[in-house]
Amino acid sequence: MRDRTEIDTLIDLMARLPGLGPRSARRAVLHLIRKRALLLTPLADAMTAVAASARECVNCGNVGTADVCAICADETRSNGLLCVVEDVADLWAMERSNVFKGRYHVLGGTLSALDSIGPDELRIPQLVRRVEDEAISEVILALNATVDGQTTAHYIADQLETRVALTSLAQGVPIGGELDYLDDGTITAALNARRRI
Amino acid sequence: MRDRTEIDTLIDLMARLPGLGPRSARRAVLHLIRKRALLLTPLADAMTAVAASARECVNCGNVGTADVCAICADETRSNGLLCVVEDVADLWAMERSNVFKGRYHVLGGTLSALDSIGPDELRIPQLVRRVEDEAISEVILALNATVDGQTTAHYIADQLETRVALTSLAQGVPIGGELDYLDDGTITAALNARRRI
Repeated sequence: MRDRTEIDTLIDLMARLPGLGPRSARRAVLHLIRKRALLLTPLADAMTAVAASARECVNCGNVGTADVCAICADETRSNGLLCVVEDVADLWAMERSNVFKGRYHVLGGTLSALDSIGPDELRIPQLVRRVEDEAISEVILALNATVDGQTTAHYIADQLETRVALTSLAQGVPIGGELDYLDDGTITAALNARRRI
Repeated sequence: MRDRTEIDTLIDLMARLPGLGPRSARRAVLHLIRKRALLLTPLADAMTAVAASARECVNCGNVGTADVCAICADETRSNGLLCVVEDVADLWAMERSNVFKGRYHVLGGTLSALDSIGPDELRIPQLVRRVEDEAISEVILALNATVDGQTTAHYIADQLETRVALTSLAQGVPIGGELDYLDDGTITAALNARRRI
């Protein structure tokens, strides 16, 4: 048996990352050791820097390196649109599309009776407060098209419908999608929302 | 556009790990930020420690935290068996099976005319020297059952056949394997090497 070394500790920690198991963690660690100067040391430094600087934006829940994130601090984005997403990953996905120029509100999950996640666990009270305090003309509910996501969207719509205009993302055939590979629900939604050409 | 922050730097570096792409790197980084105390800080520390301590064993080519690795330093393992593997990952796989109690020699790859990797790039001269200098009675060629691995095995066999007994791993049906899922080559090898029960 080999003694437990720093290398074994690193493999165990890497194996706890999502998307890596024990085998891919070992492979990644060997790769890191081979690319020590190019990858391992920069990665260790970047992790130390992020551990010191990453924080949740007090306003929207995005992850950034300041108390108020770059999006909330950007004055050019205060155009009255507020996009509600489940998760920081969803916010990043919206930002990559580079088309939405308003602001965000990250819920931090979806309502779930099973996991006893209620509105107070989800930054929904903060959302209601932002709608009251900020000059918001439209709230876009960009929640995932899952049962939990849509349940949460309905709950938020109930809370906000008298105060602000509410919209949700369109549902239909994804760009590049082939009908033969789509599920019945998507085809039904696309058919119901069909548009005149 | 978001400014480039430490978080973006970390995502870019993580995406260069084998087995992670841009999407899974983002997911891993968000996970790390959420588990800062439990995972991100320990991982940064472990990487810093490995960057400082990891080195190649001067004797066998294994990766460890000393100039001579734990296996080469272990006196109980000097039983005359030397197992030749392509890669440190293969050495670790052999060690996990916990059945081989001799020593190893890591080639660091396979012969490849295309990538202009010859014997001198592969620690083959060191292998010949070890066979001459150490009291080795048998060399086990545990190279991968690929074309490159077997070419390399033949080359090493040519170099060593007059000096030491040479063996290779058995080929056949893997434990738990189903014939219907095995390739023709494996079935042929298993049939040719059939044993009386």
